[in-house]
Amino acid sequence: MARPLKELAAHVGGQIDGDASVQIEGLAPLEAAVPGQLSFFSNSRYKRAFHATKASAVLVADGTVRTNGVTLVKVENPQLAFARLSQLFFPARTYAAGVSSEAVVHAEAHVDPTATVMAGAVVSRGAVVGPRAVLHPGVFVGEGARVGAASVLHANVVVYDRCIVGERCTLHASSVVGADGFGFVLDLEALAHVKIPQAGIARLEDDVELGACSCVDRATLGETVVGRGTKIDNLVQVAHNVRVGPLSIVCAQAGISGSTQLGQGVVLGGQVGVAGHLQIGDLAKVAAQSGVAQDVEAGQTLGGSPAIEAGTWKRAAIVYAQLPELLKELRELKKRVSQLEKGKHP
Amino acid sequence: MARPLKELAAHVGGQIDGDASVQIEGLAPLEAAVPGQLSFFSNSRYKRAFHATKASAVLVADGTVRTNGVTLVKVENPQLAFARLSQLFFPARTYAAGVSSEAVVHAEAHVDPTATVMAGAVVSRGAVVGPRAVLHPGVFVGEGARVGAASVLHANVVVYDRCIVGERCTLHASSVVGADGFGFVLDLEALAHVKIPQAGIARLEDDVELGACSCVDRATLGETVVGRGTKIDNLVQVAHNVRVGPLSIVCAQAGISGSTQLGQGVVLGGQVGVAGHLQIGDLAKVAAQSGVAQDVEAGQTLGGSPAIEAGTWKRAAIVYAQLPELLKELRELKKRVSQLEKGKHP
Amino acid sequence: MARPLKELAAHVGGQIDGDASVQIEGLAPLEAAVPGQLSFFSNSRYKRAFHATKASAVLVADGTVRTNGVTLVKVENPQLAFARLSQLFFPARTYAAGVSSEAVVHAEAHVDPTATVMAGAVVSRGAVVGPRAVLHPGVFVGEGARVGAASVLHANVVVYDRCIVGERCTLHASSVVGADGFGFVLDLEALAHVKIPQAGIARLEDDVELGACSCVDRATLGETVVGRGTKIDNLVQVAHNVRVGPLSIVCAQAGISGSTQLGQGVVLGGQVGVAGHLQIGDLAKVAAQSGVAQDVEAGQTLGGSPAIEAGTWKRAAIVYAQLPELLKELRELKKRVSQLEKGKHP
Repeated sequence: MARPLKELAAHVGGQIDGDASVQIEGLAPLEAAVPGQLSFFSNSRYKRAFHATKASAVLVADGTVRTNGVTLVKVENPQLAFARLSQLFFPARTYAAGVSSEAVVHAEAHVDPTATVMAGAVVSRGAVVGPRAVLHPGVFVGEGARVGAASVLHANVVVYDRCIVGERCTLHASSVVGADGFGFVLDLEALAHVKIPQAGIARLEDDVELGACSCVDRATLGETVVGRGTKIDNLVQVAHNVRVGPLSIVCAQAGISGSTQLGQGVVLGGQVGVAGHLQIGDLAKVAAQSGVAQDVEAGQTLGGSPAIEAGTWKRAAIVYAQLPELLKELRELKKRVSQLEKGKHP
Repeated sequence: MARPLKELAAHVGGQIDGDASVQIEGLAPLEAAVPGQLSFFSNSRYKRAFHATKASAVLVADGTVRTNGVTLVKVENPQLAFARLSQLFFPARTYAAGVSSEAVVHAEAHVDPTATVMAGAVVSRGAVVGPRAVLHPGVFVGEGARVGAASVLHANVVVYDRCIVGERCTLHASSVVGADGFGFVLDLEALAHVKIPQAGIARLEDDVELGACSCVDRATLGETVVGRGTKIDNLVQVAHNVRVGPLSIVCAQAGISGSTQLGQGVVLGGQVGVAGHLQIGDLAKVAAQSGVAQDVEAGQTLGGSPAIEAGTWKRAAIVYAQLPELLKELRELKKRVSQLEKGKHP
Repeated sequence: MARPLKELAAHVGGQIDGDASVQIEGLAPLEAAVPGQLSFFSNSRYKRAFHATKASAVLVADGTVRTNGVTLVKVENPQLAFARLSQLFFPARTYAAGVSSEAVVHAEAHVDPTATVMAGAVVSRGAVVGPRAVLHPGVFVGEGARVGAASVLHANVVVYDRCIVGERCTLHASSVVGADGFGFVLDLEALAHVKIPQAGIARLEDDVELGACSCVDRATLGETVVGRGTKIDNLVQVAHNVRVGPLSIVCAQAGISGSTQLGQGVVLGGQVGVAGHLQIGDLAKVAAQSGVAQDVEAGQTLGGSPAIEAGTWKRAAIVYAQLPELLKELRELKKRVSQLEKGKHP
């Protein structure tokens, strides 16, 4: 299983600085690595671990100086190189094609013969499961829903009727695509919240990843869309009629309210909340736990709740911790001014 | 499928301002609508879309002036009218009655003959499933649990033993009713968190909607109750012994801690947290991401974390963004006062 | 079913103050209790309920004075005593051993003969299910995964391949162990987020409880670990490579970002967020909704977002509500100073 470091370096276009004859048997984090393993160093927090590592080689950024005897592989982006090598060492799992005798596939569904449908999965009337797609146990694909080629739906994923999952998507366990958007109107006479039928769908474009227990609601009318190559972490809420642009990143427990549109390459930190009916520009970044209540221009970085420009937020947060002291200072100053007004000097 | 606008207007008690002979084939949002479709306009954010819409008719509030040639249907509450017409165009799905041969129903469970139990659903001993209730694939109904008439449990919903779901409820995929409340007591001698048995139940009253991946825990003793007509969004946490009053609205990712009681018609925004053992009065409203740490009187509107009166919170949030500047001003003022105290005038 | 109060008091080492001949038929909260029932009083918020209770006896802290005629049982820790007595009255449910004919167990899996595998559960190749373990309907145990002795996995729990659940664990409905950590690297040339394979595992040590819809991601390399006796509430996110120390408490909807380490006995309040790559010391406590962005020393109590020392946070939060007033005061003071500078006295 060992691979020559030279081969690995070539695979990622890296320059070896040190012993080029090393054989690599596996990958490991800096602290856990043993001789024979390759690690990577890209976060200065781990400098100490880097200097103490027992790894035989470490992927590092181009400028890194070799100080500790360990062989370096210099690349432009150590993390990206690590990802590529990791894919080499840990290729994606393959699945035997076919429908389990314990699965339930409707006679009027279409499951590609190269797809895998495991025990306990249910595919409804009119649903389509594409080539090499994988449905783990407990997956439910509703009527007329579509799962694109090579998409993997982990255990207990639910895709409601008519919703669409693109190609090469990964949906983690218990994630839900296409539950009703949250739309009610209070009828004061009947004293009831009247439901607005959620007649649209949810659609994931190609190469989307959806984390465990994350929810993408169906649209009231039209579509809720998660754009191509967008990656969504666990326990995230994407409300009805939202559009998340391609290549966006949404961290765990973030929530996007109804009809909001995120541009391309937007990054939402963990537990961020975005209000409804907003436009979030391309490449905008929002710090964890922030609450976005207004439109955001392209390229902006925000923080806080309500969210403001990130630099201002960071400075304001420092002053926040000093507020009790600041109040005291103000009160004392008022007394001093009162004394001055009475003509008294200290 | 087209319906005369006159008929639709009559259905919602609306006055037509414009071409009364229009035929309506469907509903669509303002921007997506094409001729032949009906839309609605109730949020001034969408004024531009309203003026540019290609819809044949638009539901509007009574006072709205017709400026752009489109036929208007004037109603008291355009959104409520839209909801009612939408229910006309998109009637709730119907299900064939019966228990799938792939479902598992215990011999000592009672499933009404008009109920629908789909493949992969499991109904335990002593459980009762009422008339016209629908259990999608992967639904689990525990021992002695009850699902009321006409309630729909979407795929992979779990109702723990003895818990109760009322009539006409909708439970979305992977929601959980009756998991153990979070109750432990630290035993310092044994160095263990000792579990307090959660021996009570969770009960949803009639007409409750529970979003995907939302959780209503069972009570320690007694009941956790979600009141009649309350609508709960996705990924919401309702802890043990909570009581949510009738007709409340709980937006996505909000959490209510143990033993707290919400009155009637309370509205919690997204990601709101409410501490335990509190009383939240009728019609109280809490802005998104707020943290309620004290009792709330009826009718109050709160914001912030910890939550305060909403108006104060909004003004304070504006000053927060100015804190670095404010600190600077204070420091400068102190210098000026010191100069004055020394008898120096600028 | 009635038990003598003497016997119950002896079980928890309590002293009876009042009528020692009472028979106890059950437990109930102070307000709901009827004669014949035992309650407990440990939170001063419930003083009124304590004085009005109809319970025949109440567990109280040692110093409590008997004022209202009710018989007291004095113990060191009333809540702990209540937990122990509650376990007496509500013993954990037992399950008949055996694999349901409606379950799907791979020929190369090992299920202990004393374990319970219910209808619709799926156990994959190479998986091990220990003695007296219980898999409810819809549970999925992936390839090579292990479930320890006496652990209970409620309906629709998912344990991904190779992941490990210790002994006596309780996993609530729809919780997920071992979904992929959220690791991607942006490839600017290919305009794609390249996935870092998540080749490690997630491991729950013994006596862990995991709430409904909570997620513990698998590690990139190595292990994500939830330590012995740690209790995790609903809808919690534990990211890849996190280590939560033994005996920690994580309340609902909290999230812990990648590679962060929590010490022993750490308590995170509801909706807390902890950033990645941090060290949180033993016995640290974080108030609900706080956001931890820096390392935390052992024993510290924090609050706020970003989180600061709890006392400072509480005082700052009070000043926050006064910010509009504070700004006004500052502006007025500036005017007064300007007047003084001009030589004018009021």
